[in-house]
Amino acid sequence: MPVAPLSLAPRRDDVLVMKFGGTSVGDPDRIERVARHVAAAKAQGFKVCVTVSAMAGETNRLVELTERLGGGDVSRDPDYDAVVASGEQVTAGLLALHLRHKGHAARSFQGWQAGLRTDEAHGAARIAHLPQDHLMASMERGEIAVVAGFQGATKDGRISTLGRGGSDTTAVALAAALGAARCDIYTDVDGVYTTDPRMVPNAKRKPMLAYEEMLEMASVGAKVLQTRSVGLAMTYGVPVRVLSSLGEPEETGDGTLITSEEAMMEHEVVTAVVPSRGEAKISLLGVPDTPGRSAMIFRLLADAGVNVDMIVQSAARQNTQANMSFTLSEKDLHRAQEKLTLMKDAIGFDNIDFNQNVAKVSVIGIGMKSHAGVAAKMFEILAERSINIENISTSEIKISVLIEADYTELAVRALHEGFGLSGTPG
Amino acid sequence: MPVAPLSLAPRRDDVLVMKFGGTSVGDPDRIERVARHVAAAKAQGFKVCVTVSAMAGETNRLVELTERLGGGDVSRDPDYDAVVASGEQVTAGLLALHLRHKGHAARSFQGWQAGLRTDEAHGAARIAHLPQDHLMASMERGEIAVVAGFQGATKDGRISTLGRGGSDTTAVALAAALGAARCDIYTDVDGVYTTDPRMVPNAKRKPMLAYEEMLEMASVGAKVLQTRSVGLAMTYGVPVRVLSSLGEPEETGDGTLITSEEAMMEHEVVTAVVPSRGEAKISLLGVPDTPGRSAMIFRLLADAGVNVDMIVQSAARQNTQANMSFTLSEKDLHRAQEKLTLMKDAIGFDNIDFNQNVAKVSVIGIGMKSHAGVAAKMFEILAERSINIENISTSEIKISVLIEADYTELAVRALHEGFGLSGTPG
Repeated sequence: MPVAPLSLAPRRDDVLVMKFGGTSVGDPDRIERVARHVAAAKAQGFKVCVTVSAMAGETNRLVELTERLGGGDVSRDPDYDAVVASGEQVTAGLLALHLRHKGHAARSFQGWQAGLRTDEAHGAARIAHLPQDHLMASMERGEIAVVAGFQGATKDGRISTLGRGGSDTTAVALAAALGAARCDIYTDVDGVYTTDPRMVPNAKRKPMLAYEEMLEMASVGAKVLQTRSVGLAMTYGVPVRVLSSLGEPEETGDGTLITSEEAMMEHEVVTAVVPSRGEAKISLLGVPDTPGRSAMIFRLLADAGVNVDMIVQSAARQNTQANMSFTLSEKDLHRAQEKLTLMKDAIGFDNIDFNQNVAKVSVIGIGMKSHAGVAAKMFEILAERSINIENISTSEIKISVLIEADYTELAVRALHEGFGLSGTPG
Repeated sequence: MPVAPLSLAPRRDDVLVMKFGGTSVGDPDRIERVARHVAAAKAQGFKVCVTVSAMAGETNRLVELTERLGGGDVSRDPDYDAVVASGEQVTAGLLALHLRHKGHAARSFQGWQAGLRTDEAHGAARIAHLPQDHLMASMERGEIAVVAGFQGATKDGRISTLGRGGSDTTAVALAAALGAARCDIYTDVDGVYTTDPRMVPNAKRKPMLAYEEMLEMASVGAKVLQTRSVGLAMTYGVPVRVLSSLGEPEETGDGTLITSEEAMMEHEVVTAVVPSRGEAKISLLGVPDTPGRSAMIFRLLADAGVNVDMIVQSAARQNTQANMSFTLSEKDLHRAQEKLTLMKDAIGFDNIDFNQNVAKVSVIGIGMKSHAGVAAKMFEILAERSINIENISTSEIKISVLIEADYTELAVRALHEGFGLSGTPG
């Protein structure tokens, strides 16, 4: 869990942090609409701090330029950060200009101007310090403080960027540092759903979710929020609301509030069913069953930057050999195969097998903590549809199964129905 | 003359400042070529500090976004600067990345990181302070210091931009602060010519020019360097060389060195013939010849932001009235006419007349200081071609005449020939 050493400000009911992603600020019309959302929050009496991403497509354009001129991936280079951070700087300046044009006091802050200090891990920096004084002074003067997301500066004064999910992380860190009542994250969906609405038309928006639930959902592939920002929100107890920027302020619903388990009135056993595509499975057959063999395999993969999940080991041939299978991201499959094949003799397995035609389906719910029988019910629901389970992994509030990809929609619909999520809104 | 309070470093023969404009860094291929120019200078033993403009077109794109979202011209707004300065930041980062990719130590500096402090005049800031320590430390470590041009920060830590010609000005200020042996300004021409080569095919490149000559040439419309940067170079005695970035380093000629009058071996009487289009002429007929009347007229125009030039007043009607004419930039004509017409009664003139079909042609040469008869010769050359002179203005080293626009090329060729510029290179 990422923990930034922020000095938590006392909670203030009149401070709101708002965050708008790349799609929400993708063109001038959309930036104008963002300004209307911000003005509406200000009109409700909030002191507002806004943080923005680069205009959609801009970061990719800049990254491509760095790759072209840097001769490949240079995302760990300080000059990469100097180039890429400019995208958020532009959006922040434009939003501040437009707010002022519409009669609202406002000013933009780049990461370093807001005092956001990071470590030296360029391209994937962690927030080291975020004081509240500059921003709070601006807000106390009646200004809307517009902060370029995704970036900060090292103690040597070089620009750094926070890597994937950096703008969400900036927003949550700002909310913690300013003691904001809430962090509103505007995106292109109007909240978090019980499952993918494209797959299950009667999926329901969740009015509330516990941090842990959102974390598990993010970790199995729900794209709404980055794991890192949810972890930070949980650590500092920042209430986060996910809502849509695609309509006008008056059309915006309540979204989904992500908060602590204690703050929630009641818990359902299962909150959401999350499908995850882009999975692959590797099986190693006939691995000698001697101590240290699995460690060797997974160290090899870790060193190659491959994350594995859902590891299953089963005995084979009178317990002198084992079969081992695990899942990984489809994009890492080729690299993992290559590494393992090179080490075939050292590891001593007989055969390697892989399968890209798999999908992971997870059921998540904080109520599972105190509720037995969820796994049994899940397996029964799938068995009734003759869906075969290849691997299983569980956490305290999540059960994931690996199934044949063709059955994904069927499984998701059956579980959504079977756990009562298609009925009344949760 | 703009004078920046720089602390002049002692001149060091091993330090070179290089500047590349927007066309020179207009695409990735060109940035790669710029890197080869920089590497070639480094290979000659120089400690190199490079400053760059935004990629051609980028500043316009950003300015349009600020106008769209700011509701018009917002170029005096600090957030305008925050947006627009990002263009140079990107180029500086990309050049540093590419230099390192090619094996040369390098790092980028944004204006504020280089310590370039300006006044608070956002959009057209003046350099207030530029220390040499950060950059010199980088160069002493063997790095090529790549500085984003055109920008700095105010003492409150807000980004500022230097306005028109800002990147040339940054380059000259860097050269002064670092005590550079020379400031090489790469552009899309290979030097300064005796006249416009598109008009006079046998125009010659000048190997050397005095600051005063370059200043006069810039002020009458030669586009090679901005007046402001030449003034700064003259103030601090920085030798400036203009040369082309369009070829490879080995193809680059010697360009034109702009230096002090004293450093030049000999002075020609006339160095260059400079045509200037885009001029217009306003005549006010029957202005009452009473004290303070001209002051009233030119104060009115100055307050409207109209620069006037070549003022001629002649007596009319037994010295109780005068006719007055002056030239101005064509783009200001409409505004000036409007203001004057509104004040017709207050000023008391009979009639206003204007002419857009005029051109200014100037001959320039530091040798004029000690050489009489240049004006007479100029008028004779024009008279021989039956070219009528409408207005005249002179400075110590320049004579400008206003003529009918259709005769521009004829006049320029005749003067270029007549003053011996078409013969051997100067």
